[in-house]
Amino acid sequence: MKEQLFERLDNAYEDMVIIRRHLHMHPELSFQEVKTAQYIRDFYINLGVEVRENVGGNGVVARIKGGRPGKTIALRADFDALPIQDEKDVSYKSTVAGVAHACGHDGHTATLLQLAKAIHDIHEDLAGEYVFIHQHAEEYAPGGAKSMIEDGCLEGVDAIFGTHLWSLTPYGAIEYLTGPVMAAADRFVLTIQGSGGHGAAPHQTKDAIVIGSQLVMNLQQLVSRRVNPIESAVLSVGSFVAENAFNIIADSAKLGGTVRTFNPEIRDLMELEMKRIVEGTALSNDCTIEFDYIRGYPPVVNHAAETEFIKTIIEQLPDAEAVEAEPQMGGEDFAYYLEKVPGTFFFTGAKPVDPYPHHHPKFDFNERAMLLAAKALGAAAIDYQNN
Amino acid sequence: MKEQLFERLDNAYEDMVIIRRHLHMHPELSFQEVKTAQYIRDFYINLGVEVRENVGGNGVVARIKGGRPGKTIALRADFDALPIQDEKDVSYKSTVAGVAHACGHDGHTATLLQLAKAIHDIHEDLAGEYVFIHQHAEEYAPGGAKSMIEDGCLEGVDAIFGTHLWSLTPYGAIEYLTGPVMAAADRFVLTIQGSGGHGAAPHQTKDAIVIGSQLVMNLQQLVSRRVNPIESAVLSVGSFVAENAFNIIADSAKLGGTVRTFNPEIRDLMELEMKRIVEGTALSNDCTIEFDYIRGYPPVVNHAAETEFIKTIIEQLPDAEAVEAEPQMGGEDFAYYLEKVPGTFFFTGAKPVDPYPHHHPKFDFNERAMLLAAKALGAAAIDYQNN
Amino acid sequence: MKEQLFERLDNAYEDMVIIRRHLHMHPELSFQEVKTAQYIRDFYINLGVEVRENVGGNGVVARIKGGRPGKTIALRADFDALPIQDEKDVSYKSTVAGVAHACGHDGHTATLLQLAKAIHDIHEDLAGEYVFIHQHAEEYAPGGAKSMIEDGCLEGVDAIFGTHLWSLTPYGAIEYLTGPVMAAADRFVLTIQGSGGHGAAPHQTKDAIVIGSQLVMNLQQLVSRRVNPIESAVLSVGSFVAENAFNIIADSAKLGGTVRTFNPEIRDLMELEMKRIVEGTALSNDCTIEFDYIRGYPPVVNHAAETEFIKTIIEQLPDAEAVEAEPQMGGEDFAYYLEKVPGTFFFTGAKPVDPYPHHHPKFDFNERAMLLAAKALGAAAIDYQNN
Amino acid sequence: MKEQLFERLDNAYEDMVIIRRHLHMHPELSFQEVKTAQYIRDFYINLGVEVRENVGGNGVVARIKGGRPGKTIALRADFDALPIQDEKDVSYKSTVAGVAHACGHDGHTATLLQLAKAIHDIHEDLAGEYVFIHQHAEEYAPGGAKSMIEDGCLEGVDAIFGTHLWSLTPYGAIEYLTGPVMAAADRFVLTIQGSGGHGAAPHQTKDAIVIGSQLVMNLQQLVSRRVNPIESAVLSVGSFVAENAFNIIADSAKLGGTVRTFNPEIRDLMELEMKRIVEGTALSNDCTIEFDYIRGYPPVVNHAAETEFIKTIIEQLPDAEAVEAEPQMGGEDFAYYLEKVPGTFFFTGAKPVDPYPHHHPKFDFNERAMLLAAKALGAAAIDYQNN
Repeated sequence: MKEQLFERLDNAYEDMVIIRRHLHMHPELSFQEVKTAQYIRDFYINLGVEVRENVGGNGVVARIKGGRPGKTIALRADFDALPIQDEKDVSYKSTVAGVAHACGHDGHTATLLQLAKAIHDIHEDLAGEYVFIHQHAEEYAPGGAKSMIEDGCLEGVDAIFGTHLWSLTPYGAIEYLTGPVMAAADRFVLTIQGSGGHGAAPHQTKDAIVIGSQLVMNLQQLVSRRVNPIESAVLSVGSFVAENAFNIIADSAKLGGTVRTFNPEIRDLMELEMKRIVEGTALSNDCTIEFDYIRGYPPVVNHAAETEFIKTIIEQLPDAEAVEAEPQMGGEDFAYYLEKVPGTFFFTGAKPVDPYPHHHPKFDFNERAMLLAAKALGAAAIDYQNN
Repeated sequence: MKEQLFERLDNAYEDMVIIRRHLHMHPELSFQEVKTAQYIRDFYINLGVEVRENVGGNGVVARIKGGRPGKTIALRADFDALPIQDEKDVSYKSTVAGVAHACGHDGHTATLLQLAKAIHDIHEDLAGEYVFIHQHAEEYAPGGAKSMIEDGCLEGVDAIFGTHLWSLTPYGAIEYLTGPVMAAADRFVLTIQGSGGHGAAPHQTKDAIVIGSQLVMNLQQLVSRRVNPIESAVLSVGSFVAENAFNIIADSAKLGGTVRTFNPEIRDLMELEMKRIVEGTALSNDCTIEFDYIRGYPPVVNHAAETEFIKTIIEQLPDAEAVEAEPQMGGEDFAYYLEKVPGTFFFTGAKPVDPYPHHHPKFDFNERAMLLAAKALGAAAIDYQNN
Repeated sequence: MKEQLFERLDNAYEDMVIIRRHLHMHPELSFQEVKTAQYIRDFYINLGVEVRENVGGNGVVARIKGGRPGKTIALRADFDALPIQDEKDVSYKSTVAGVAHACGHDGHTATLLQLAKAIHDIHEDLAGEYVFIHQHAEEYAPGGAKSMIEDGCLEGVDAIFGTHLWSLTPYGAIEYLTGPVMAAADRFVLTIQGSGGHGAAPHQTKDAIVIGSQLVMNLQQLVSRRVNPIESAVLSVGSFVAENAFNIIADSAKLGGTVRTFNPEIRDLMELEMKRIVEGTALSNDCTIEFDYIRGYPPVVNHAAETEFIKTIIEQLPDAEAVEAEPQMGGEDFAYYLEKVPGTFFFTGAKPVDPYPHHHPKFDFNERAMLLAAKALGAAAIDYQNN
Repeated sequence: MKEQLFERLDNAYEDMVIIRRHLHMHPELSFQEVKTAQYIRDFYINLGVEVRENVGGNGVVARIKGGRPGKTIALRADFDALPIQDEKDVSYKSTVAGVAHACGHDGHTATLLQLAKAIHDIHEDLAGEYVFIHQHAEEYAPGGAKSMIEDGCLEGVDAIFGTHLWSLTPYGAIEYLTGPVMAAADRFVLTIQGSGGHGAAPHQTKDAIVIGSQLVMNLQQLVSRRVNPIESAVLSVGSFVAENAFNIIADSAKLGGTVRTFNPEIRDLMELEMKRIVEGTALSNDCTIEFDYIRGYPPVVNHAAETEFIKTIIEQLPDAEAVEAEPQMGGEDFAYYLEKVPGTFFFTGAKPVDPYPHHHPKFDFNERAMLLAAKALGAAAIDYQNN
């Protein structure tokens, strides 16, 4: 059966690229993916497959039953984009200013749609049931996974598999890892309220930009001094906004960013020590700093049996090599599925000629990797019947 | 004659307030003051006074000849607003989001218009000629003064006077000073090009926000360590913009600000040492930092004779007290007029009940001060005939 | 045989404490441990055991042959102290100002001496040969291990064991770990040459203290931003010296510290990025900064077989529990022995009532742990004959 | 009379140099100047002049009465040295390690002694009385002036004059200024108590060096942001001491420095804002920072009449030019004399070929300037009789 599936996928590769590029040109931000969801729904309707839309928000779930009873396997692809200006010089460049598929979710969606089509083609010969979870809002907590689960997307599901195309891993390599594979991903917002004034009279003000800069510098010590060096932790201030005329001293500044950890104790420590530094900085500068720390996705913890299983699947895949992954500091709300059902999340190498990290304005990936990803997910879904 | 003028001004006070509040509700940014200029022009047309518009840009100049020959005296008011959100809770609050008359130029304009009307009423009895210079774009270099001068606004002018309503000086006090009274006002833009990426993977990036923060902190040393403490200098970073999703590391950041000095050697030193710190920071972080340093207005240097003259004028003014000013670090393109003709620039105390510094989102002033300003300028213009 | 050994060690515990406290009161700095070396030598001479002094410096090596042939097992204890002021309030407090056994090497030495005495007592009944390596200068690279090895201390040795009393691990727990267990420990010295002057005239100087402080702050970014968060790295500036009268601006400042890593690539990265930050800081401040980076001990990498062996030994030890260790960022020149012969380095829990970290001015340990350490080393030495 | 005095001084120049170089080779720290005081006392005893020693500490005061009644004029020279290593390569280099006359007090003393000798020679022909105040401990608050005044050194004095040889002012120029001429000179000590430990385990410590560096960086904002730029203020951290082995994290650090201001309000502001920054930094780092702020000398405020007088004296001096001084941020306990009696403090240009600022390890001065200083002080003393 896998050979039939693989042949159909090989033939579908060009369509995969077309879908991916279409989505790439029309990216939508998390929780605003209305047209993308319609596109996905229409694909399934055209296919004649049962599809449910508005699952837990903009989520779309299609189900294909095999010709005989068996296990129910879910496959997941996310489809939201990022608030980044696309700086690539390609024909399929984003047409939306300030929004781009800079993380590969367009590829995930194209992969899963063509995989669903191929499975649909041969479904009479398959056992069990196949659930295609097209998830919105992976990039922005609280994310789409949680509400889609609450809205029933995992109903009856025995196992789940998901993959991420990875721009820094060579094409052909597919990475698996048991246990914690992606980090807890928290978000924070710091609102500094100083006191503005004329750029020439600093003594009449409390300069919110100097206060913010001091804060950024002092926050470096969390990772460099306060976390056990054996543990992993990241604190990134990703946004610093205090926009004013040149001759004005900033009244306020808004900083935002993320904290990543694997260990719950370190997670608590980071929040506690951040609070301490924020309070000390406010005291030093006689100003107020509002500190919101929003806990995001838990760590993605892969199940041992399903990870061992996917490793075997990869090893049997033509042109693919199974490689043990390193844990990633990135967060993923795939974490929520794995809290409910067995499964594993793996990384499909998709390094292009000129690679950039995920979320970079010039991010792109090797589209051939979509085919490998489709084969890995498809083979996993079919073979898991016999697992 | 002055008594007649003062009586007319007393009667015009309510109209002054109406004009001021109208302008306050409809502020326009520097170089975009089209409607304000029309408003001023229409005022003079309604008065039947000769008026020239589009002088060196959006500038407006009206001239009123007296009944007999004499000196030509120019009086100047600026009329542009600032990119600040009006945060006052008053009936005449700005109706334009993000734009406000947070420096009092609305008051300057109302003052000069009503003074022109009063002078027009009695012009037959006056000697000489009166030039009302309504200047656009004082807040943003290269400013409006320079181009208005090039376009002839000072033609035939023997002396010039100008005043600034001052929100931190008590009502009744009018401040004069001979020599340097306002600073050289330069502008800089720093564009940091780091390398963006995912917030969880700092080691694959060059974090433009950390680089910018380091720069802001290190720039503090210019004033604290490198300038002779006997000299005056200010460096303010007024803008820090790196706006991104929370889970992104900033690819670039843009900082802008101002440098204020009185002494040309210190001005050169500030630029030189800034350059040094910028280059070292770029080297430390293996990134590029573009550094634009734009020299703005020269210092405002009041002429001794005209300053002595205005002091006497103030001393004779009812309800006013002449106070020696301290030099201000603020810049003013009134500097250019004083490079061409004799004159002086003084500060009219306008402290309200709840005072904020100029350029503060809650800035306001005591409107009664407009009347004192009008009397001081008017008396100066009339008495200078006999000087 | 082990029972006899354990009984003798139990009886020797009081003597162990006496020796430990004597050494504690008379600490000597690395490479200056002349009297400590004599004390050790005299102990063996009094015992009638063959002893060699000045091995590779101040090292002392004793050898005890068993009654029949067998393997040659080395046991190692270090005996140098640290440049720290002893701040404990105990009867056996250091009598040398500014020098203290704040790392437990006094305990290691007392342990090994009494173990040697016990083994000597029963040597007729033992197979093989026992080598007691008393090593000087563990705390200060290049350390004593390297030169002692070059001077023959490992001659004929089949395996080596060593332990560290650990003040933060509970008494009873003994920690083992296969693979990298302690980090590469590098040292750096930064000499900032600014330009001194009067405290009231900063503009005539280049303030070495401000430059040094800027450097310390910017160096925090190495760990927080430039190292992959999955990897471990530490950079600590342990010394900052610029001592002057209060009204002087520092002409120069001297900073020293350590870098710890497990991964050779991260080790190279740390040195490279430090260099970059140092050069940028020198450029920013128009000063010179001399940067010496001295590579210290390599990582301690425990051999798998000997670690498995010691785990079994610990499990059989009365009152002890075998616990898997976490890798330590501390360095140890035990690394050099393990590059030459099989062996393992383990941690003997010695947490006192009021625990402080190693190298703290109030550091102390639970002396009962010396007895457990002696039993573990002794049992390992005897049982390894049958391994 | 002045001609006679000047001729004797010209002849005494070589002796002046001998005295100065002797003192230069044997410098003594503030409050420890026992031998220097003996040297001065012996000089007067050999001269047969009435001398009082141990005045308010190590101070020495000699009095010479003229041949007829008149005013009593005091002249003051200080004689303590600094804790600086002399780095000059000259024959008269300091013979005391770590101590040097790096501020010219040796020259002041030589000048005053030879002037006293010259005045003694001609005293029969002079009116009034001449008081030679040789003051100890100018460099270290509370200084010697206060206690010498309390011990009667100004008894009967009508006016006082003092000068400072100035290494950055050209020879021939003598600088006078009415009003505030030298700053209030305060001292502070910051004792950071963190928590020490092993350099490899930052998370178990509170790193006093990082805390101290953060403090130094944040203190830069006092002058750059919190003081009115029209005002003068200096904050210099002159000492940063946390000396440890390279592999230790600092338990504590000691910082010391100085604050200079002219305006009492700014002086209060600096202390208040320092306190705020210290407290915020302690809070941020969960440590304690002891903050001692010791108010030092008040500003030196020259009297108008005596300054006008000295200006005339200088103008009449051969080879000298009167130049208006800029205020100096340095402190001087000459301030205390001027709080009691009229007088003025002026600067005698003494720029050598290779000039260094005062307190620099290579500081030296043009010795010819001692002769000019002696003439200016002598002429002032004699002519003031007729003032």
